[in-house]
Amino acid sequence: MQQIQQMVNPARNYWFTHTMIPRLVLLAIYIFSLPIWSVDSAGKGGINVWPKHRNLTWSQPRLATQLSPTFTITPLSESKHLVSATSRYNLLVLTEHHHPLVTPIVNQSVTSPPLQTLNVDVVDLGIPLQHGVDESYTLTIPISGAANLTAQTIWGAMRGLETFSQLVWDNPPRVPVGLYVWDSPLFAHRGILLDTSRNYYSVEDITRTIAAMSANKLNVFHWHITDSHSFPLMLPSEPDLAGKGSYGPNMQYSPEDVSKIVEFGLDHGVRVLPEIDAPGHTGSWAAAYPEIVTCANMFWWPAGSEWADRLASEPGTGHLNPLNLKTYQVLKNVIHDVVTMFPEPFYHSGADEIIPGCWKADPSIQSFLSNGGTLSQVLEIFVNSTLPYILSLNRTVVYWEDVLLDDNVNVQAIVSSADFYYLDCGHGDFLGNDSQYDQQTGGDTGNGSWCGPFKTWQTIYNYDITYGLSEEEAKLVLGGEVALWSEQADPSVLDSRIWPRASAMAETLWSGNRDEKGTKRYAEATDRLNEWRSRMVSRGIGAEPIQPLWCVRNPGMCNTVHPFV
Amino acid sequence: MQQIQQMVNPARNYWFTHTMIPRLVLLAIYIFSLPIWSVDSAGKGGINVWPKHRNLTWSQPRLATQLSPTFTITPLSESKHLVSATSRYNLLVLTEHHHPLVTPIVNQSVTSPPLQTLNVDVVDLGIPLQHGVDESYTLTIPISGAANLTAQTIWGAMRGLETFSQLVWDNPPRVPVGLYVWDSPLFAHRGILLDTSRNYYSVEDITRTIAAMSANKLNVFHWHITDSHSFPLMLPSEPDLAGKGSYGPNMQYSPEDVSKIVEFGLDHGVRVLPEIDAPGHTGSWAAAYPEIVTCANMFWWPAGSEWADRLASEPGTGHLNPLNLKTYQVLKNVIHDVVTMFPEPFYHSGADEIIPGCWKADPSIQSFLSNGGTLSQVLEIFVNSTLPYILSLNRTVVYWEDVLLDDNVNVQAIVSSADFYYLDCGHGDFLGNDSQYDQQTGGDTGNGSWCGPFKTWQTIYNYDITYGLSEEEAKLVLGGEVALWSEQADPSVLDSRIWPRASAMAETLWSGNRDEKGTKRYAEATDRLNEWRSRMVSRGIGAEPIQPLWCVRNPGMCNTVHPFV
Repeated sequence: MQQIQQMVNPARNYWFTHTMIPRLVLLAIYIFSLPIWSVDSAGKGGINVWPKHRNLTWSQPRLATQLSPTFTITPLSESKHLVSATSRYNLLVLTEHHHPLVTPIVNQSVTSPPLQTLNVDVVDLGIPLQHGVDESYTLTIPISGAANLTAQTIWGAMRGLETFSQLVWDNPPRVPVGLYVWDSPLFAHRGILLDTSRNYYSVEDITRTIAAMSANKLNVFHWHITDSHSFPLMLPSEPDLAGKGSYGPNMQYSPEDVSKIVEFGLDHGVRVLPEIDAPGHTGSWAAAYPEIVTCANMFWWPAGSEWADRLASEPGTGHLNPLNLKTYQVLKNVIHDVVTMFPEPFYHSGADEIIPGCWKADPSIQSFLSNGGTLSQVLEIFVNSTLPYILSLNRTVVYWEDVLLDDNVNVQAIVSSADFYYLDCGHGDFLGNDSQYDQQTGGDTGNGSWCGPFKTWQTIYNYDITYGLSEEEAKLVLGGEVALWSEQADPSVLDSRIWPRASAMAETLWSGNRDEKGTKRYAEATDRLNEWRSRMVSRGIGAEPIQPLWCVRNPGMCNTVHPFV
Repeated sequence: MQQIQQMVNPARNYWFTHTMIPRLVLLAIYIFSLPIWSVDSAGKGGINVWPKHRNLTWSQPRLATQLSPTFTITPLSESKHLVSATSRYNLLVLTEHHHPLVTPIVNQSVTSPPLQTLNVDVVDLGIPLQHGVDESYTLTIPISGAANLTAQTIWGAMRGLETFSQLVWDNPPRVPVGLYVWDSPLFAHRGILLDTSRNYYSVEDITRTIAAMSANKLNVFHWHITDSHSFPLMLPSEPDLAGKGSYGPNMQYSPEDVSKIVEFGLDHGVRVLPEIDAPGHTGSWAAAYPEIVTCANMFWWPAGSEWADRLASEPGTGHLNPLNLKTYQVLKNVIHDVVTMFPEPFYHSGADEIIPGCWKADPSIQSFLSNGGTLSQVLEIFVNSTLPYILSLNRTVVYWEDVLLDDNVNVQAIVSSADFYYLDCGHGDFLGNDSQYDQQTGGDTGNGSWCGPFKTWQTIYNYDITYGLSEEEAKLVLGGEVALWSEQADPSVLDSRIWPRASAMAETLWSGNRDEKGTKRYAEATDRLNEWRSRMVSRGIGAEPIQPLWCVRNPGMCNTVHPFV
């Protein structure tokens, strides 16, 4: 694997939004080539697993049995995170008492003995949670006798435990029998980005999100920790960064908080990937170190200037100064602490939206430029002064794609398209005195924000992240991430902005968005997503509704047979 | 007052959306003529009252004092709902301990004695809560001695108590002194519509919403109780309507529930205005009485038919049959029960979106039409068979404007524009198999839904509900209502969809959206709305955020000096 990876599309950069996407789209004619293994034997009133399994058979006649009150999930060999997961799921399946919106149709005339045991057999307990880890599993629930879950890794076993939990319903709990599942993800990287700088989220908000991710078989919590607005991460070597740059003492993450979140992630099979965005998006660093930040605390778009001469693409200015050696003293402390706190082998270094005006506002950079230097050289100095250090700490570095100055088709990519995967979009712009909303005629205020319209669950579900790529290029796509940037989000809307739309991506990246005939399966997915959303809500995740309850109670009646144009 | 009022704009009717609004807009050249009494002596770090008062003076130097631990709000005369309100606010001001995002600037060098008492003097305790009731109040908090709140009615006193509560902050609680407020609403009708048919909301969801309305000085909870999707209202005379037509026994409102909601409304100065939508939007009635509902449970837009031949404008078909006498037996029982349960003098009879195809699907109506009858006559029969009965029960009838077959400029109007006031819009369409979202190029899926884009708080705040009307016409505008239709809303998103956007309308209808110079004051309102939203969240209302916390901490820095086009 290459050591440098990119995120497409940052699109915090307006320029990028307007010109880069069409260019990418024109790369090649789209040929859909994802393998389809799905053989679905469960229909209406049947099995609702989200994300949908790759292969499931439920033998006829469809039977179900009760879970014994002493039902036990038994790991055949012990390992800390596996035991944590089996205990959790054991409690869940016995106490959830889920009532589906539409009751599963099972043959009631034949009775099976209660299910006593689910054995969990992991081939290699030692394989760590990291990119590309084997997440496959097989689950067998026979008509009588113990059920069996086998996986190469404990992370695959966790995926299988989640599937098992979604098969259970009713009070007392019942589970289908005569059932076999083989499952494995199409894409290795399936993530959610959360921005905790623009607004703060509590540790409990983050762990609840990670638990929900695990339930959706998502595996990367991309934590955009710091930005220009606040620096909430308490670092032992650089305590002033959060001490002076956070929103306040009750809006910081201590090393203990981070440890709790990382452990929680491991217990749920979710990697916690830290991003310390630099050299742009660093205004908050100036509270502790004003000397290393250019254009800090300046008005973001000076009166009378052109867009090209702005200091930032939105309010909140500040770039680290690559020509100041102090910058690297601080940054190396930061990197060292972060690498110590986060075991995750990826380190996200940001590097998006470097705005020329911000660097040009600094006298030392002005001097460098007037002596024949270029801004590309300034950036090169920054990368060359930080990248080797991060690599020396045995980390793979991830950047937003802005940093790639050359077209390099060999770079691996994680897709985070503003057109499809930005969950915050479509709720209007947040500027304080934005006159565009002072209209009396309605309907003319664009798409609801710069990156609008709102990304519906269908938009996200239908998006093929390798669209327009050749087969060779598609292999370089590691996966995708939906993103919740927090200009207009905070704990009040965390759950409803993320769920169930992140569930839509979760299924597309796990098992695809097409049926066995290669047809997009969004219609079939609708009822299933209604069920899954309802189950998430009862599990304490405030996912937003996608339809009136009437629709799932009246299958097909909320469809249309007419094309909308 | 006329007995028939209209709601503009229903806009569930697609035709309406596309053609009616431009026509209204062209009526006249816009002349802004709302009176402006606001004299604001409170600036940055000062007083944050939402909706903003009409007139407030805070004498220099700006002083504040503590509330005595035994501080008491004392009604000078007693009445049930007033006592309920004073007790509630007494507890709130002593226990809220609100911490503003930006601390008020007060002169700390001069100390005042703690405030012991707020006397509440109501001129006429007997005036009931109804349209046009006097809601004015004056509030005086002297530098020493008791504070005084005087109002013509207990409803005005409740508005003043809310203002007082918003003036209090800190732990121990403090309040500005040397302060005088005179306040009164610009518009009498300031409401929120909630649709409890498409998805169900608990009684607690509704009372929490009413409490939040009261805090925003809104005064009409327009309860769109029934529709085609479910009939959740248990009626003593027609128990089968909810018994068979609700989503289930745990998703119904009993007479006791209604009584609780109505009383809660009275304790909070919020009218509870019931809407039983008929003759359209009645599919759910067919569960109990299939014989009185035309086109019930049919596919909403038959394959191959034109839009004009649809049976409903969205999934969920069914109209009451005006030619069946049984219809009126049932409907009169319904009306009688509703009028008994709801003391509110307005009765909303719906009458929106009568779809020709649905009536035409019925043999008896077909026969009427083939004998020379018209659909307008069918509607006339319905109105003539129900309106006199409702009037005889001493109710003012409110209809959606669809029912007005002639242009009648003398009709009074409540504005509920889909372009400005529909809070559900902009989150995509909800059809189960909508192919418009299967695109790989992004950005082309319209405005996020038929009534998109999302209505930002600024859009709502800046909207002048008398725009385009002559001075005479403007006098016929009673006020406005934001609406939360529930195709894509339910308890999970109730608070965040409504708040703080309904707060934006609340201020515009209470004190206007312009400063003393006549300039729209959305920039000034931004910081104040940040504060108010934060306070709502701490009061348990899950309002969505409008900006990063950084913006309110850095006043003006999230503005722009550039026009957006």
